Amino acid sequence: MIHLLVLHGPNLNLLGLREPEVYGSETLDQIDDRIRRWASVNDADIHIEQSNHEGKLIDSIHARSDWADGMVLNPGGLAHMSICLHDAIKAVDIPTVEVHVSNIFAREAFRRESIVGSACVGIIAGFGGESYIAACDRLKSILLRK
Amino acid sequence: MIHLLVLHGPNLNLLGLREPEVYGSETLDQIDDRIRRWASVNDADIHIEQSNHEGKLIDSIHARSDWADGMVLNPGGLAHMSICLHDAIKAVDIPTVEVHVSNIFAREAFRRESIVGSACVGIIAGFGGESYIAACDRLKSILLRK
Amino acid sequence: MIHLLVLHGPNLNLLGLREPEVYGSETLDQIDDRIRRWASVNDADIHIEQSNHEGKLIDSIHARSDWADGMVLNPGGLAHMSICLHDAIKAVDIPTVEVHVSNIFAREAFRRESIVGSACVGIIAGFGGESYIAACDRLKSILLRK
Amino acid sequence: MIHLLVLHGPNLNLLGLREPEVYGSETLDQIDDRIRRWASVNDADIHIEQSNHEGKLIDSIHARSDWADGMVLNPGGLAHMSICLHDAIKAVDIPTVEVHVSNIFAREAFRRESIVGSACVGIIAGFGGESYIAACDRLKSILLRK
Amino acid sequence: MIHLLVLHGPNLNLLGLREPEVYGSETLDQIDDRIRRWASVNDADIHIEQSNHEGKLIDSIHARSDWADGMVLNPGGLAHMSICLHDAIKAVDIPTVEVHVSNIFAREAFRRESIVGSACVGIIAGFGGESYIAACDRLKSILLRK
Amino acid sequence: MIHLLVLHGPNLNLLGLREPEVYGSETLDQIDDRIRRWASVNDADIHIEQSNHEGKLIDSIHARSDWADGMVLNPGGLAHMSICLHDAIKAVDIPTVEVHVSNIFAREAFRRESIVGSACVGIIAGFGGESYIAACDRLKSILLRK
Amino acid sequence: MIHLLVLHGPNLNLLGLREPEVYGSETLDQIDDRIRRWASVNDADIHIEQSNHEGKLIDSIHARSDWADGMVLNPGGLAHMSICLHDAIKAVDIPTVEVHVSNIFAREAFRRESIVGSACVGIIAGFGGESYIAACDRLKSILLRK
Amino acid sequence: MIHLLVLHGPNLNLLGLREPEVYGSETLDQIDDRIRRWASVNDADIHIEQSNHEGKLIDSIHARSDWADGMVLNPGGLAHMSICLHDAIKAVDIPTVEVHVSNIFAREAFRRESIVGSACVGIIAGFGGESYIAACDRLKSILLRK
Amino acid sequence: MIHLLVLHGPNLNLLGLREPEVYGSETLDQIDDRIRRWASVNDADIHIEQSNHEGKLIDSIHARSDWADGMVLNPGGLAHMSICLHDAIKAVDIPTVEVHVSNIFAREAFRRESIVGSACVGIIAGFGGESYIAACDRLKSILLRK
Amino acid sequence: MIHLLVLHGPNLNLLGLREPEVYGSETLDQIDDRIRRWASVNDADIHIEQSNHEGKLIDSIHARSDWADGMVLNPGGLAHMSICLHDAIKAVDIPTVEVHVSNIFAREAFRRESIVGSACVGIIAGFGGESYIAACDRLKSILLRK
Amino acid sequence: MIHLLVLHGPNLNLLGLREPEVYGSETLDQIDDRIRRWASVNDADIHIEQSNHEGKLIDSIHARSDWADGMVLNPGGLAHMSICLHDAIKAVDIPTVEVHVSNIFAREAFRRESIVGSACVGIIAGFGGESYIAACDRLKSILLRK
Amino acid sequence: MIHLLVLHGPNLNLLGLREPEVYGSETLDQIDDRIRRWASVNDADIHIEQSNHEGKLIDSIHARSDWADGMVLNPGGLAHMSICLHDAIKAVDIPTVEVHVSNIFAREAFRRESIVGSACVGIIAGFGGESYIAACDRLKSILLRK
Repeated sequence: MIHLLVLHGPNLNLLGLREPEVYGSETLDQIDDRIRRWASVNDADIHIEQSNHEGKLIDSIHARSDWADGMVLNPGGLAHMSICLHDAIKAVDIPTVEVHVSNIFAREAFRRESIVGSACVGIIAGFGGESYIAACDRLKSILLRK
Repeated sequence: MIHLLVLHGPNLNLLGLREPEVYGSETLDQIDDRIRRWASVNDADIHIEQSNHEGKLIDSIHARSDWADGMVLNPGGLAHMSICLHDAIKAVDIPTVEVHVSNIFAREAFRRESIVGSACVGIIAGFGGESYIAACDRLKSILLRK
Repeated sequence: MIHLLVLHGPNLNLLGLREPEVYGSETLDQIDDRIRRWASVNDADIHIEQSNHEGKLIDSIHARSDWADGMVLNPGGLAHMSICLHDAIKAVDIPTVEVHVSNIFAREAFRRESIVGSACVGIIAGFGGESYIAACDRLKSILLRK
Repeated sequence: MIHLLVLHGPNLNLLGLREPEVYGSETLDQIDDRIRRWASVNDADIHIEQSNHEGKLIDSIHARSDWADGMVLNPGGLAHMSICLHDAIKAVDIPTVEVHVSNIFAREAFRRESIVGSACVGIIAGFGGESYIAACDRLKSILLRK
Repeated sequence: MIHLLVLHGPNLNLLGLREPEVYGSETLDQIDDRIRRWASVNDADIHIEQSNHEGKLIDSIHARSDWADGMVLNPGGLAHMSICLHDAIKAVDIPTVEVHVSNIFAREAFRRESIVGSACVGIIAGFGGESYIAACDRLKSILLRK
Repeated sequence: MIHLLVLHGPNLNLLGLREPEVYGSETLDQIDDRIRRWASVNDADIHIEQSNHEGKLIDSIHARSDWADGMVLNPGGLAHMSICLHDAIKAVDIPTVEVHVSNIFAREAFRRESIVGSACVGIIAGFGGESYIAACDRLKSILLRK
Repeated sequence: MIHLLVLHGPNLNLLGLREPEVYGSETLDQIDDRIRRWASVNDADIHIEQSNHEGKLIDSIHARSDWADGMVLNPGGLAHMSICLHDAIKAVDIPTVEVHVSNIFAREAFRRESIVGSACVGIIAGFGGESYIAACDRLKSILLRK
Repeated sequence: MIHLLVLHGPNLNLLGLREPEVYGSETLDQIDDRIRRWASVNDADIHIEQSNHEGKLIDSIHARSDWADGMVLNPGGLAHMSICLHDAIKAVDIPTVEVHVSNIFAREAFRRESIVGSACVGIIAGFGGESYIAACDRLKSILLRK
Repeated sequence: MIHLLVLHGPNLNLLGLREPEVYGSETLDQIDDRIRRWASVNDADIHIEQSNHEGKLIDSIHARSDWADGMVLNPGGLAHMSICLHDAIKAVDIPTVEVHVSNIFAREAFRRESIVGSACVGIIAGFGGESYIAACDRLKSILLRK
Repeated sequence: MIHLLVLHGPNLNLLGLREPEVYGSETLDQIDDRIRRWASVNDADIHIEQSNHEGKLIDSIHARSDWADGMVLNPGGLAHMSICLHDAIKAVDIPTVEVHVSNIFAREAFRRESIVGSACVGIIAGFGGESYIAACDRLKSILLRK
Repeated sequence: MIHLLVLHGPNLNLLGLREPEVYGSETLDQIDDRIRRWASVNDADIHIEQSNHEGKLIDSIHARSDWADGMVLNPGGLAHMSICLHDAIKAVDIPTVEVHVSNIFAREAFRRESIVGSACVGIIAGFGGESYIAACDRLKSILLRK
Repeated sequence: MIHLLVLHGPNLNLLGLREPEVYGSETLDQIDDRIRRWASVNDADIHIEQSNHEGKLIDSIHARSDWADGMVLNPGGLAHMSICLHDAIKAVDIPTVEVHVSNIFAREAFRRESIVGSACVGIIAGFGGESYIAACDRLKSILLRK
């Protein structure tokens, strides 16, 4: 059984309510349900957290570093600025996939580069809640290959 | 009766004590008293918070998003860097005025652009504690016009 | 009695007619009337001018430098480029508030910095014609404090 | 009958005399004659002005905004810097063609971008006095299509 | 039955042989087999091409624009420079997913932005040959939702 | 009789079908018909080609370098990046006019400079299919002047 | 007796475990023990905290601003981005030394400038856990000189 | 007898009154007197003008282009931005010396480059009113050498 | 016997005819003859191709990757932009020397960096047709050393 | 016994005399005395030189490369520009600490990056003459650990 | 009697011989003679040196810092890069005038800013050997005013 | 007989000892021997110098400007910064080839442009000691062609 840590960053608790023309109408609860269904089908143990605090996200990454085999991280707006999240991923050395609900590469200039992503295995962006499922699939595959 | 959320960002708890040649000698308590007096005169319900945590400011914006009709936000040094605060304002879609005690446009180069401000209705900067009162006045006017 | 110089820069004579989705539907005459009403209530002597000429604006600042106790300046598109207006404000050393009808910080990249603003006491942007009234209020307060 | 406003910006009064290796030897009077001949053939009413003052050009755009159906504007060196001219064109909302006698895109780096052009229908550059005739042709065609 | 166009850009024919420490040891044939197996399971009709010519990729996009319901595009090094590929995707208006075998965001500075990606629905990068499968899954999901 | 080479670059074969709000609804065939009508009236021999391949465009320029007296070139998205097209124009030393259907100076930042244009006589942009006719007119005039 | 506040920023709790080829194999506990031994020898009162939260670090700086005579601050990845930490140091006006375990000037481009450092007395970087001891030595010397 | 045109740009009418710590305490009248004394001693005919209008300065350059053998130009804040003044100097082709009262190269970043100066023979900056006299000396010498 | 692939990029077929003041008067045929003479003297087997197509150059590199011991590549204007050529060289891992007929480092700003060159063993630029001979000499030497 | 080379770069001979508000009042002789006292206490052999010549500093590094176990280098203004000093340190491969008397990170923009520092073990800046002592301490510790 | 130090930087020994179309045909000896004649007329004691070594120029500034009342410095190509020369001028605190024979502001981009000049009283550029005489005049005037 | 000046810049005296993985294991003496052998075979008179002083290199260029017919210059790290070396080459007007032992275009960003190279005939980089021989060959060929 694989253990996956799923972290939602700032403002993702408002998914579905927030700018639906950008982020879609699916709520975070619905996405989390999907992730849990994926887990039950794929024999995975999932831990999900959301926080608007960069520090809390780092704390969670550290706290689960022994337990987790892989991490799905939607850093939200922290993707573009947070050297500390980048460092946290490097520090725990767990294969991590950065996900975004929207296609950050088709939006404002300040969203076009990802400091967090350069510490990750890969990036999946633009597929709404399904970005998470695609990331879970990829992590499972990476972990089984080991 | 209008409901206004007033948020003071990092280091503003030290107003009056901190670099008075830049920020003036009025303390945050004195500013908050002024805001409350303005509220009593203008038939407004005010909720005031200060935090040095970006995450806490975002939490507060989310928590008050149903209650608040408008927001006065002094993001302090987060103005220039925090995409997450920008996203939070966009997410709750409450008319927000960014205020600054000092004129950020006449200081160091790294203070000259506001990522937060591009999600706001407007900006008021450079008038000490009165920046807040001017923002309250503007928000009242915007809300009454609706 | 305080003396305030109010200067409207290029294209502001077309307010209300020009791109109303950006600048609102209030005309410059209506704004000037509001400013004059504010003056009569606040025991202020007001002189208002509009010009599309950078040079004329500088001339007016110089000409009124002895008379004026404070200045409200909407430099329009000159805000971002005019070192000469910046220098004029520094030269006469009158407390000046830069105002903008729209929130210049939420528009094209070339409007995001203000060279003029770095010579001013503060900036108020984004509140339509009320940006001017807010500036008058602030200047009165600054002048009474002296 | 269509009404076209033709504006020549700074230094264009010296055409033919000024740096002929860059700008050719045709004088502004000769160009204006050509434009008038075009007008008489194309049943157009033409008003032509030249000014070295950015403010005067803006004044003229405003003054002719009801009369003019289209505008041919050679902003000269103002093309690259003048946000105010950009705003004036947007404000009056008249289809405008930016023209240049020389090919500004093959000269100094500071001439390679046009702030004015981003408010226009199109740009024609590099054809000496004929740039104006080409612009008149295009405007007539645009106006007849309406 | 959905129709998917799969395009491999420059140098991808050498996958498995080329810099395996960056791109892995799976060959393009093996990846294409995987995609075909996915298609047979998912009731999809797949057309796969590889070209080292930007022009040929554009030709193929145009030629299949009526047939294809979705497109999986690995632009290789063209991702960062090719405005023409960007325009081709916009022109045919077919939902397109950009894929990369390696995590382009963790490599040289010149690979960190994607001009092609800003015309796509989303980006998947860093998962070797599985990036393609993930893209097929996402496209199927997008197309069924329509 | 003058000989004009007319080259349409990448994606222009989709004109009329592609993003009509940007490029208009006239198809490339209709534009080519217009150009041919212009040629029959103006006693010109016209050769027209379209290609999505930068290399093919260069080949054509070389192949027609003895035959052609002038060239009308719409480089599409290659305008902003292709040093090779720039060099090809310089190499054959035929007077060339760069045309664009849309006003590239009013679009995304990456379309605002033209490397190709700096090797041309001039640029005409923003007039739909008529940009080509204007270019033909200009070239005829340049060639007759020789 | 001097009072020194020692603050460890994000991810420093993982020292010794995290990327030992970059940060060495000494753990934070071992470093803290060293600092405490230094304190007992140098007649200093030391308060040590670690946090992954920018806000918590600012809170701690504020809370200890009366008690502390000097501060040793390892801001980790916040060094390069956090205007708020910069402001906090300026606000409390306590002599502060920025320390780094690794030589940040020999790493990625985004680590080469320190916004925090420009509010400090000095910087010591590259000496593993000994960077802290060197900072304590320097602060003691600065404080005795007063 | 040589004819020299002396042009003072924006805000120079306030010399002596304006920021004396930057510009010194000599007034423009005193400087003009000095220049006239220099002229009487050096057998020169001098014409002096001051204007806050870029357009007026260009008009004057044009108007005196036949009369003047040389020009002394203090463009003030226009030095760094005015392509039009640059073009005017190139257009009339009169040897011109740019002067500044203060050392513009030791002030704000936006004063460190001179677009006007690249059209001049040379630059003299930093010597108060004497910058003008030095420029007159240089021009006389240049003109006599011809 | 060593096998060398010699590739001439875009526009090099016009050597001798094209801008001779920049590129000299030697034609490509003459250069190729020289290379063949060098080959016969140096016991080398040479394959020479020229193409104006980036894609064709990549195809040729791939096609000859088993045959070739070394490569001489003049990428022409592709040197500065083509990540795909860079990747092709890395992919086949054949020692490659970039050559230029002119000294690209003494020309326009956009020719001053070589993306292709960073994948090569070395660069030789500025010696006309002899740049190729020098490259052949160097490759022979490198290959013999192996 | 360890051997340390101490190099003072340009202008450091004027320490104590030069801009004391920036660099303090301690002279270089006094600092050298301190370093010698440190050496006698720490059983170290010290060689100290000062030069205003980049070349002389490089010569000295080369000349002492066999003798020296470690190096303390204050490159002064060369820190930000001298690739040659960077290369010299890399070439001799002696552990080197860059020191600065002032905190270079809190001064002009052109002092904020250190090319020399990226070749060093670490940097110590901002502590006056004590920066050297701290560097000696660190080097001793590094050397003993070997 | 005033004492002036005149320093000629790199390559100035070749004046008259070197690129006469840029630097004129006057030799350094002729310029030095002129300076000496100026000195004898103006009751000044002059010391002149030329060096191609940045370090030697700094040595000379230091060595003459007690003797010299003012300095005329032509830093040549060091003007744009040498922080050390900037620091040397600040260190000795002698009024210094930067001179250039050519107008550096009208040449290559890398000559357009002067790091040395920001430590000087003023700059005189573009007047051949007379730039020196103008500088001597200005220094005499500055020194007499003290 | 041709006279060639061969100049080795900073740190090249350590060739073979210094970072052999970058610069190879051949020493400067071995390279010089090679150059001398080349000279004896090619009937050339060679003068070789090495210096770590920019000023000394300039002195040598000047001193040999009458004697030398051509120059081979390895400026080392000065290549990217030294405007003075650039100027020296321009001043003496001797055909010069810049050589580098390593491929500077495949290393750190600060080595990717050559200010020195823009004053040279050409550049040869990346071939170890053979870069020099290739340069000698090229110079001989250039000189014989004259």
